[in-house]
Amino acid sequence: MAGQIFKIKYKDKKTDARVGVISTKKGKIETPFFMPVATKTSVKHISSLDLHEMKCPAVISNTLILHLRPGEHLIKKMGGIGKFMNFKGINVTDSGGFQMYSRALYLGSNDEGVWFRNPFDNRKVFITPEKDMQIQLDLGSDIAMCLDTMPLIEHSKKEIELAVERTTMWAKRCKIEHDHLQEKLPKNKKQLLWGITQGGIHPDLRKKSCKELREIDFDGYSVGGLALGETIEEEMKMIKIHKSIIPENKPCYLMGAGNPMEILEAISHGVDMFDSRFPTQNARRGTIFTSNGKLRITRREHEFDDKPLDENCDCFVCKNYTRSYIRYHLNQEEAVGYRLATFHNLYYLTKLMEQARKEIKKGTFLDFKKKLKKIYDKADATVRVDKPRRIRKSKKAAYLDRMLH
Amino acid sequence: MAGQIFKIKYKDKKTDARVGVISTKKGKIETPFFMPVATKTSVKHISSLDLHEMKCPAVISNTLILHLRPGEHLIKKMGGIGKFMNFKGINVTDSGGFQMYSRALYLGSNDEGVWFRNPFDNRKVFITPEKDMQIQLDLGSDIAMCLDTMPLIEHSKKEIELAVERTTMWAKRCKIEHDHLQEKLPKNKKQLLWGITQGGIHPDLRKKSCKELREIDFDGYSVGGLALGETIEEEMKMIKIHKSIIPENKPCYLMGAGNPMEILEAISHGVDMFDSRFPTQNARRGTIFTSNGKLRITRREHEFDDKPLDENCDCFVCKNYTRSYIRYHLNQEEAVGYRLATFHNLYYLTKLMEQARKEIKKGTFLDFKKKLKKIYDKADATVRVDKPRRIRKSKKAAYLDRMLH
Repeated sequence: MAGQIFKIKYKDKKTDARVGVISTKKGKIETPFFMPVATKTSVKHISSLDLHEMKCPAVISNTLILHLRPGEHLIKKMGGIGKFMNFKGINVTDSGGFQMYSRALYLGSNDEGVWFRNPFDNRKVFITPEKDMQIQLDLGSDIAMCLDTMPLIEHSKKEIELAVERTTMWAKRCKIEHDHLQEKLPKNKKQLLWGITQGGIHPDLRKKSCKELREIDFDGYSVGGLALGETIEEEMKMIKIHKSIIPENKPCYLMGAGNPMEILEAISHGVDMFDSRFPTQNARRGTIFTSNGKLRITRREHEFDDKPLDENCDCFVCKNYTRSYIRYHLNQEEAVGYRLATFHNLYYLTKLMEQARKEIKKGTFLDFKKKLKKIYDKADATVRVDKPRRIRKSKKAAYLDRMLH
Repeated sequence: MAGQIFKIKYKDKKTDARVGVISTKKGKIETPFFMPVATKTSVKHISSLDLHEMKCPAVISNTLILHLRPGEHLIKKMGGIGKFMNFKGINVTDSGGFQMYSRALYLGSNDEGVWFRNPFDNRKVFITPEKDMQIQLDLGSDIAMCLDTMPLIEHSKKEIELAVERTTMWAKRCKIEHDHLQEKLPKNKKQLLWGITQGGIHPDLRKKSCKELREIDFDGYSVGGLALGETIEEEMKMIKIHKSIIPENKPCYLMGAGNPMEILEAISHGVDMFDSRFPTQNARRGTIFTSNGKLRITRREHEFDDKPLDENCDCFVCKNYTRSYIRYHLNQEEAVGYRLATFHNLYYLTKLMEQARKEIKKGTFLDFKKKLKKIYDKADATVRVDKPRRIRKSKKAAYLDRMLH
């Protein structure tokens, strides 16, 4: 299907931002868009009906985690991931390569594949690129990801180079197996496959990865191994390299970025897709996205605050509940508090993406981005921001473990 | 307000069931009804909008827990408990007497009042009947409960007798203080106050408690200290005694009962109000109420079950999600699983109460109850029922602690 699945509809004149449409077996989706993380076929505290209510167009689930429980055979039998979770939008699956940093799951890897421990029965599970493709097809997602080897920013250049090489090798095997498995499917039933580029923040390695992956000709391409603690400048530099090598007519997906300003910055460099635990995890920890920038709801000053989370928001949370009520529930670790804060943050980000698409179409995206940056900078000056920071090496595994939950 | 707040509209000819209307400062509520437990101003995983959607007419919150955090001053300042949680139904508050069985909170008691430990700041808190009335008025609930001393079924008769005596003493003090605090309020702003009878399952003590409380002339009366492990026959016997002594025109509230058949049985003896963690706690543990009796959703046989929880239910959960999906989420302890199962169980019980009122009005309540009993008995024959069982003394505290969460 390579080549025809993505149509660019509008190109911004002042930035590299664009509005496009990706055609999947489940329908079309307008870019740029953000995907909440539905690891186990649900976003924490948010049902698919909630996602429909906020007009969320896509979610991303985790191939490896779903393979361990309930198993792809179950989801296939129940009609595929979209039907299983009763979600009308586009279902994307990540390969599970990221779980190589989960102390709870990862055992080891070689050129052939990755060993994981299934925490539910303690059995060893060997995941190869081929196996990963089979699982994702059984899950029935609309867009699949290659199995990659993701190095961390703090890995040595040599380690990152090896990861790039293995990622290319596996990408080739993924593509061959994916084509093979799909051979007999009618064109309108075919799953799309994205390649993932690696290379950390080393320009030469990132270039090498992009060039090698370009040759394989995927339906779309992900920028991998970023949003993990590097500076925003380092991140954007890598995106620029990626975009300069991967053809313009391929959708570009920046994996793991969910900070509103980071997203708008990446959109201005031509990124089309985003996913992250950032808005949901921040919500649970009390950082709320609002039209006035970030709000730390757990601060004492909101104890008696009868305003909604965001006075300019029309989500059900803002129409019905006060900061005081949500603050109390978050402080008490009550489920309803998590639910209300999470719904609002996702609603905010979904509307922000809708707005971004509108501004690109109108040719006013750059002004929009600048205006929002001012607001966020002003709020950030008074509010501690939960941006992922560089993590000390000793805390890395714990940090990544936490990112999974 | 005693005497005029409750009007009986229909009386069943074959049982003591009745349909009535309680008039509160927030509006009228038809009896019999069931109240989900919203300890900290939210039902676990269920927002007030969810409660409106299922037409839930009332919830019960916990005076002591709310006193510890966020404090009644906050809720008062935010417009009272109903406004704070944005709930359109009737707000009932329990006094917190039950928390005398919480190892985490209870320190000791004497005739004057009860010492609790505030787990949030480790300070000692002394709750007297007078203080409890002040807190409940500040919370602004529509119906308040007296501070009582609740003995457990397994306490010695002497201990239960002392509890009855103290309960009467405190009931008098509650009534005096409540009247005093409300003196200057206009009639349509007045909070109602229920007395609570104790006496375990000893007929003579239960009679003594009912007679003494009757003299104080409360707006309504609760049957306390039951639904804690006694048999259903013992429970109904105590209700009969309570009803034979307390005037007919007083609403009767059986505290802590939430098992559907137990509720219908109690309705047939003239009980008007119910509350319990039973439907919500059972939901989280995988026991689902359905029109075919109880369903153990975590059983292996439902792994691939694409039916809704209840094929005869029209709640949003049953219209949108399969048993397979909910089972997987409950097994994974995922919030969405808890939410979906909880919503359905509460919806079921709310509809059951609606149905009970209809059947009483039609004069067909007894047949309805018998029919449902057959269905439940049939299901119970194959399904382990999570009915509260007699708890061994050593496990009592742990059990009660669990009941609080």
